[in-house]
Amino acid sequence: VTYCVALYLEEGLVFLADTRTNAGVDHIATYTKMFTVEKPSERALVLMTAGNLATTQAVVNEVVEGRGGAAEREGGTLHTVDTMLGAAELVGEAVQRARRPGGGEHVASDPRFDATFILGGQIQGRPMRLFMIYTEGNFIEASEDTPFLQIGETKYGKPILDRALTHETSIAHGVKLALVSMDSTLRSNVTVGLPIDLATYQRDSLHFALRHRIDENDTYFDALRTSWSEALRSALVAAPDAPWNVTG
Amino acid sequence: VTYCVALYLEEGLVFLADTRTNAGVDHIATYTKMFTVEKPSERALVLMTAGNLATTQAVVNEVVEGRGGAAEREGGTLHTVDTMLGAAELVGEAVQRARRPGGGEHVASDPRFDATFILGGQIQGRPMRLFMIYTEGNFIEASEDTPFLQIGETKYGKPILDRALTHETSIAHGVKLALVSMDSTLRSNVTVGLPIDLATYQRDSLHFALRHRIDENDTYFDALRTSWSEALRSALVAAPDAPWNVTG
Repeated sequence: VTYCVALYLEEGLVFLADTRTNAGVDHIATYTKMFTVEKPSERALVLMTAGNLATTQAVVNEVVEGRGGAAEREGGTLHTVDTMLGAAELVGEAVQRARRPGGGEHVASDPRFDATFILGGQIQGRPMRLFMIYTEGNFIEASEDTPFLQIGETKYGKPILDRALTHETSIAHGVKLALVSMDSTLRSNVTVGLPIDLATYQRDSLHFALRHRIDENDTYFDALRTSWSEALRSALVAAPDAPWNVTG
Repeated sequence: VTYCVALYLEEGLVFLADTRTNAGVDHIATYTKMFTVEKPSERALVLMTAGNLATTQAVVNEVVEGRGGAAEREGGTLHTVDTMLGAAELVGEAVQRARRPGGGEHVASDPRFDATFILGGQIQGRPMRLFMIYTEGNFIEASEDTPFLQIGETKYGKPILDRALTHETSIAHGVKLALVSMDSTLRSNVTVGLPIDLATYQRDSLHFALRHRIDENDTYFDALRTSWSEALRSALVAAPDAPWNVTG
């Protein structure tokens, strides 16, 4: 199972993805679900994937690697597309092709082949944007009112973002919130696992500020987890007591 | 959609259930999902229900109301059963009967008729116990290592319990945690709604300390929600910053 989250902030973008796949408890493999395309001072894009591995690999092969004639097709790849909207359309078209077995007209409706994507970043002269692309090829966009998008096993990590994240949150605080959201998922679903991939992008910079893989030996992630659990226990003590008699 | 949670604490038990049913956004009805059976100084039991309304109503009619010949059957009802284990077996048998259309041998495997239950409490001379009963009639029990059980839309409200609840948590703090867990669910799933039913039981008391319905006008629940969101934002600021450059 996968968990990927992206934050759409005034200051920039934060991307976080786990790497676990083949999540039988006795058959664990890691597989990158975050793909970055960067040409400094021209473009910086992130694509994150969830769902069927055959579908997501076909899409990545096409829009990131340029296979299957994608480089020659109108629109090209994430390396050549002119706008973020065009990039989202490329991903949407690629997922539709991936779900047409044999290249025919028939789109497989088998939900086992479903896949969803998060795509965000910026291209020179254009605004920074963040999209979620559905298995049907349509997409939605993050906004000031919808400052985060999630794919995969999204529920465990949603409440902390609902409560504490706004579009005005800084990248530094956003990184902490995304990691806490991931930790909530890791604790509750053992098939989502470390290592996790983190990337940050500052608006209008046209290069990644950070691309980092967090593994089991990461002392900061451990410290954050511990700090957060302690903070919650303190918040519990500090929260007002119920006005009713609850014992007796 | 339903969310019910019960806490198994050294000091006693906490039960919390929403009341929303028919959760189309334009067709909202409230329906009690928490049923209490109390005979002071002899027994205090709570049954909470999730899933298909026809199935849960059939089970409640039988084990709480004593309909369908249940009062005469061996084991009787929650009003007469001798032990909490026996009570869990009554519920498990009732859900199996409810899933046999026409009373035949065939158990409906249609997942639309699935239902799950939480049953907890104490009967004179016997230990306090807490069970979750599955649609197949089997059950699991809460323990010092598994101090809470959930049914329904469980994921949004799980991380806060995973992080902050232990068997040693007091009833007063447990009430706060259960309400925060419910609030996380209410915020994320609009088909889970107020009012919510709360009950608390102190171990060996053989009566309920509190049975209370919280509605939209409850000032305490509002104050707790506000306090909790503020505490999380403070915790975010206080949490250690990542050691990496995340901007630039």
